[in-house]
Amino acid sequence: MHIALDVMGSDRGADELVSGALQALRESSIKITLVGDEEAISSALALRRQDPLISIFPTTQVVTMGDSPMDAIRKKKDSSMVRAFELLKNKEVDAVVSAGNSGAVMAAAIKFLGRLKDISRPAIASVLPTLKGPVVMADVGANVDCRPKHLYQFGVMASAFSKIMFGIPEPRVGLLSIGEEGSKGNVLVKKTHELLAASNLNFIGNVEGRDTFQGDVDVIVCDGFVGNVCLKLSEGLSEAVLLMLRDEIAKTFKAKMGYFLAKQAFGNFKKRVDYAEYGGAPLLGLNGTGIICHGRSNAKAIKNAILVAGELASNRVNDHILANLALDEAGLSSSDLEDEQ
Amino acid sequence: MHIALDVMGSDRGADELVSGALQALRESSIKITLVGDEEAISSALALRRQDPLISIFPTTQVVTMGDSPMDAIRKKKDSSMVRAFELLKNKEVDAVVSAGNSGAVMAAAIKFLGRLKDISRPAIASVLPTLKGPVVMADVGANVDCRPKHLYQFGVMASAFSKIMFGIPEPRVGLLSIGEEGSKGNVLVKKTHELLAASNLNFIGNVEGRDTFQGDVDVIVCDGFVGNVCLKLSEGLSEAVLLMLRDEIAKTFKAKMGYFLAKQAFGNFKKRVDYAEYGGAPLLGLNGTGIICHGRSNAKAIKNAILVAGELASNRVNDHILANLALDEAGLSSSDLEDEQ
Repeated sequence: MHIALDVMGSDRGADELVSGALQALRESSIKITLVGDEEAISSALALRRQDPLISIFPTTQVVTMGDSPMDAIRKKKDSSMVRAFELLKNKEVDAVVSAGNSGAVMAAAIKFLGRLKDISRPAIASVLPTLKGPVVMADVGANVDCRPKHLYQFGVMASAFSKIMFGIPEPRVGLLSIGEEGSKGNVLVKKTHELLAASNLNFIGNVEGRDTFQGDVDVIVCDGFVGNVCLKLSEGLSEAVLLMLRDEIAKTFKAKMGYFLAKQAFGNFKKRVDYAEYGGAPLLGLNGTGIICHGRSNAKAIKNAILVAGELASNRVNDHILANLALDEAGLSSSDLEDEQ
Repeated sequence: MHIALDVMGSDRGADELVSGALQALRESSIKITLVGDEEAISSALALRRQDPLISIFPTTQVVTMGDSPMDAIRKKKDSSMVRAFELLKNKEVDAVVSAGNSGAVMAAAIKFLGRLKDISRPAIASVLPTLKGPVVMADVGANVDCRPKHLYQFGVMASAFSKIMFGIPEPRVGLLSIGEEGSKGNVLVKKTHELLAASNLNFIGNVEGRDTFQGDVDVIVCDGFVGNVCLKLSEGLSEAVLLMLRDEIAKTFKAKMGYFLAKQAFGNFKKRVDYAEYGGAPLLGLNGTGIICHGRSNAKAIKNAILVAGELASNRVNDHILANLALDEAGLSSSDLEDEQ
């Protein structure tokens, strides 16, 4: 297994990403090609420069967070991001991990890898912690205006991912809406409900916002606008709840004592909901494996993303996706699946 | 000031609602008509039966949570909900508070009060706690498929509410999207951005999910599907975070001690984010004042909803809404405001 890590364009700089790569080497035998500024990488690698599992692919350009995705991948031909996906396209590596501009990562992935046969819109999946196990949400930002067919396919792709990643034989798929009954929701969701109900997925019906963190559903399907809003709302709210709680605790001496003693629990809690544990968001529906990491990813998140990329590339999520689409072809009438619907 | 309280159809029963009404009497001189089953109300009132500020309007039917909103208000003519809105229509009371089926409350409000002149779609607003002050989100469920004009009007209505309710002279209005730039978002949001930017509102641009709880925006505009998902996601996540934290705390003796001492802080925190503090969600854009309370509302939430209803009815939010719409009429071209857009 061989991963290309785009070390440029993240918020924390190349050092942090290289450090994540070195951590991955300690836990696996994955080969890693570090793509980016040679000097920065060499200095971050220091004595590990000679590790046979590590190689450097030097590039001269960087796609920044402010770049327009399409422009960036067209014009910055020697950027670390473009070069990483070229390596994957040319089968010199098995997967790409990047913490750069996520719109540009998606654009590069579509351009260089191409969409998986029969998939209209590749999606970004995200793994969230719940009271029980993790839940996979898709799409979380690649597609802001969707048709029912797209949401159905997000369900197929995320279900395959959940199977491979968490070993769940028949992932429970829920459709994010504002009421449990199939008749509740907007036009898009109501039509999608019909498609999912007629599919071979283990569709358990609509789920509501408050079900997201209960852990009674394995896959949550939504459009990329709603998914992205939910993802960022969750991040912001978790932080706000902890800040408010700490604030209240600091108000009394007794509580300060309490905080001191409960500190370990706060630490464990943070670890439990740490996005870094899940190592980035997989791109689904492409001819190849790509992982987008949060721009603020620390070394641990990068390490986990590399391990997830290795897992995904070796387990052929795409075979599961294609098998499921084929299964449904007979059941879902072709008009249901029209792109124009 | 005279409020009709629909005491039927909530999750907790008439006792809890009557108890909320009695609490409101202790803190204000609002007159309250309790609408619902006479026996249940009398028994809940007990010795307070003779209070001159309280009257009973007996009804025989109940709109339940499972009822279809339109059917319910058409067929259950002697339901507490329908009767309460009739009282308001006939100007026998100044506002209605209900913790019943929220779709039916909205339908009854539109039927009996009518839409405010020039408002296409009345909305439900919700007040959320943040790290600084409260934020008003609209719409949170009345309109699941919207046009840009509707979202613009939600901004006008919620801004007027924020002015009256929290005394903010120029509420900062943000548009919920998935990137700060006006060019980010789905088609609906991008068009709405143009309208809000051209309006006389204090529009500060797009806000993201993670900004919701920072307290740097006073009004968040979104369609009712997204708003409702966000609202329920926030409820579910806050509960999950506290449960997980408690769970971690219980794992070690040290932390248990810590929890014991930090208990007060947990209590204060809960109070700080308690939905009951804000007393229900106002209906905006109607010829009259209505407040929808959570079906699980406790007495305190009902008390606060009654106080908010009194505040709103006496402060004429609608005048502010109409003034703002008139101000914008010149600036926004009529084609921008077409219902068909």
